Amino acid sequence: MSIDRVIDKVDAEARKRAIQVFRERFKMILDQLQKGENPTLVLPKRTLSNTIYDEKRKMLLLGPEKLRRSLFNLHEAKKFMQTMLMAKIIYEALVNDEYPTIRDLYYRGKHTIVFVDDRGRRIEENTWDEQKESDAVIRDIEVFTGMLREEMLILSKEKGKVVGNMRIRSGNDVIDLSKMGHGAWAIEPTPDLIEFLDVDAEFVLVIEKDAVFQQLHRIGFWRKYRAILVTSAGQPDRATRRFVRRLNEELGLPVYILTDADPYGWYIYSVFKIGSITLSYESERLATPKARFLGVSMTDIFGDERKKPYLTETERRNFIIKAKDADIKRAEELRNYKWFQTPQWRKEIDIFLRKKAKLEIEALAGKGLRFLAFKYIPEKIETGDFIE
Amino acid sequence: MSIDRVIDKVDAEARKRAIQVFRERFKMILDQLQKGENPTLVLPKRTLSNTIYDEKRKMLLLGPEKLRRSLFNLHEAKKFMQTMLMAKIIYEALVNDEYPTIRDLYYRGKHTIVFVDDRGRRIEENTWDEQKESDAVIRDIEVFTGMLREEMLILSKEKGKVVGNMRIRSGNDVIDLSKMGHGAWAIEPTPDLIEFLDVDAEFVLVIEKDAVFQQLHRIGFWRKYRAILVTSAGQPDRATRRFVRRLNEELGLPVYILTDADPYGWYIYSVFKIGSITLSYESERLATPKARFLGVSMTDIFGDERKKPYLTETERRNFIIKAKDADIKRAEELRNYKWFQTPQWRKEIDIFLRKKAKLEIEALAGKGLRFLAFKYIPEKIETGDFIE
Repeated sequence: MSIDRVIDKVDAEARKRAIQVFRERFKMILDQLQKGENPTLVLPKRTLSNTIYDEKRKMLLLGPEKLRRSLFNLHEAKKFMQTMLMAKIIYEALVNDEYPTIRDLYYRGKHTIVFVDDRGRRIEENTWDEQKESDAVIRDIEVFTGMLREEMLILSKEKGKVVGNMRIRSGNDVIDLSKMGHGAWAIEPTPDLIEFLDVDAEFVLVIEKDAVFQQLHRIGFWRKYRAILVTSAGQPDRATRRFVRRLNEELGLPVYILTDADPYGWYIYSVFKIGSITLSYESERLATPKARFLGVSMTDIFGDERKKPYLTETERRNFIIKAKDADIKRAEELRNYKWFQTPQWRKEIDIFLRKKAKLEIEALAGKGLRFLAFKYIPEKIETGDFIE
Repeated sequence: MSIDRVIDKVDAEARKRAIQVFRERFKMILDQLQKGENPTLVLPKRTLSNTIYDEKRKMLLLGPEKLRRSLFNLHEAKKFMQTMLMAKIIYEALVNDEYPTIRDLYYRGKHTIVFVDDRGRRIEENTWDEQKESDAVIRDIEVFTGMLREEMLILSKEKGKVVGNMRIRSGNDVIDLSKMGHGAWAIEPTPDLIEFLDVDAEFVLVIEKDAVFQQLHRIGFWRKYRAILVTSAGQPDRATRRFVRRLNEELGLPVYILTDADPYGWYIYSVFKIGSITLSYESERLATPKARFLGVSMTDIFGDERKKPYLTETERRNFIIKAKDADIKRAEELRNYKWFQTPQWRKEIDIFLRKKAKLEIEALAGKGLRFLAFKYIPEKIETGDFIE
């Protein structure tokens, strides 16, 4: 037990930047106190009514509405205190070389404040009871400081994986993503700290399902087609979304997304492309507005006036799963979102609602992994058969 | 799109071995047919009544009961046909260099057989309707051939990750698990094909929670204490279990398991150590009977006659979560399992049932990540404060 910790320069610099931003943003409060003013935080409202779909930038963004939180205001005092408490905890973690998670930030701040009120009664008040309260405060600090929590070295569970012909620097290591054997590189929880060293790839394929990622990886898809292969393993987490966005924005690689043919798969695509409705403030950094929906599309299953279906009638009978009521309801919700109101998406959703049919990617692998890897995917990319 | 597929020798050899076993095991059926006998498969029963806890080997194993499946027996014919159909599909996948998943094996075999019965009626019969039917058939083939499905190159979703001072060969690549930057190596879905090249570590720490794994990784735990750090990201999958078993058995590294202090965490430990009750036939390969439960234990929280608790009274008040009815019920179930009937486990479960209290690992990280990484874990290992 002798080897000491190797200093991680990348993390040290990230800390310095975050500390600087905290000092600058919260100095205001000190100034207000010194001037004898009521300490007040002004920050963008994270409400649904202040969430706007920007048609030009093609992503969900926070609108112009602001909220004020003052110390000397009965309705705002608790929220003000919670925000200051969380800011203090995060700041201390930054200074002390800690790596908190949102779950442990909840624990770090959770305690009971005992005080005597103006009628002399002893009152006990918890800083917060549930993690959703402390999480909301962390989000407030994100919008107030303009930093993602990852930039504050707050870590989290991370499901995303990547392989491909690309070298990166993460921490102190240079990692060759084409040398991961049968495994993959589990994406780090702070993807902004990754440095792209060199890349020899033509596109990024993001696969909803980890098992299908394993199959395409193992059969050599990314090598043959010079692809960067990513899986989100279901609903994408923030790190995977940020990583994909950076591949698109900084390396100029087109991003294709492959999901099951059902409203759940469409929603995964939508989160990658547009952002999530409840966390729209992060879209500006996490969304990939140019991401393309490669499939599996309803026209892949049933064909249309332009193309023959990829499945025979017998295959459709064997592979199609009947949509459940929840799927139908979800599809009707998605139809109301502006970004699903393009002709191509209307058509997709209409076929789904008419046929009440969904299909898993695995059904295409069941038709033959070579069919999926060496015909379906490359043919759709080459012929431009995707939804922009 | 020119680079051809690199031949994966390891996979090619694994295929050859599996094909050989299939030929040997199923030749019997051919012999029976040639002799004019009723084709019959005899295989171990995978029932609860035939699942035995082997006190000496300390793992769940299948007992001696066998079942017979004959073609010319009305009650057994469908199961016999399903088994032969699945064996054929897996065999073909092996021969054709495919990498199926259990989900696509379901699709590959799913179809409707139309026939006319002895009264002249047209009958339609599906090979199988639900994946649980085809999965059960795959398990039958595993016990019949004595091979894990991974040895048949059947892939699956894989959540496990590893970092540490160790070099391995996976596929055609040599991978240095100490050079994964802030990320990790996502364990391959066929961990028997990994070759351990060299290792400089004293123990394996398996962490239930991915986020805590990220924290310990980032703060340099494995470097300081010469550990191999693994996360199962919740309930462990087969590949992670097999990987941990191999680290223990082949490299002789002690394995410590760190979970939340609750019956769900205890069960995760139990799956690593003993195997899962419903899939006992795999324990022989996947279980790590020597795995130790490092914590978080009830005595860590509350202390006992031998030791002081790791939490102060205030911390207990802030961090402890009240057990739910489902937790209590689960704990009472676990108390009935033989392998939880040791004095130490009885004590743990009794404290839990008396206090109705559970605790997450994150609460210890909330007390300070350095406390978790540089005091709690190493101190417990050094003083032997774990459950064998």
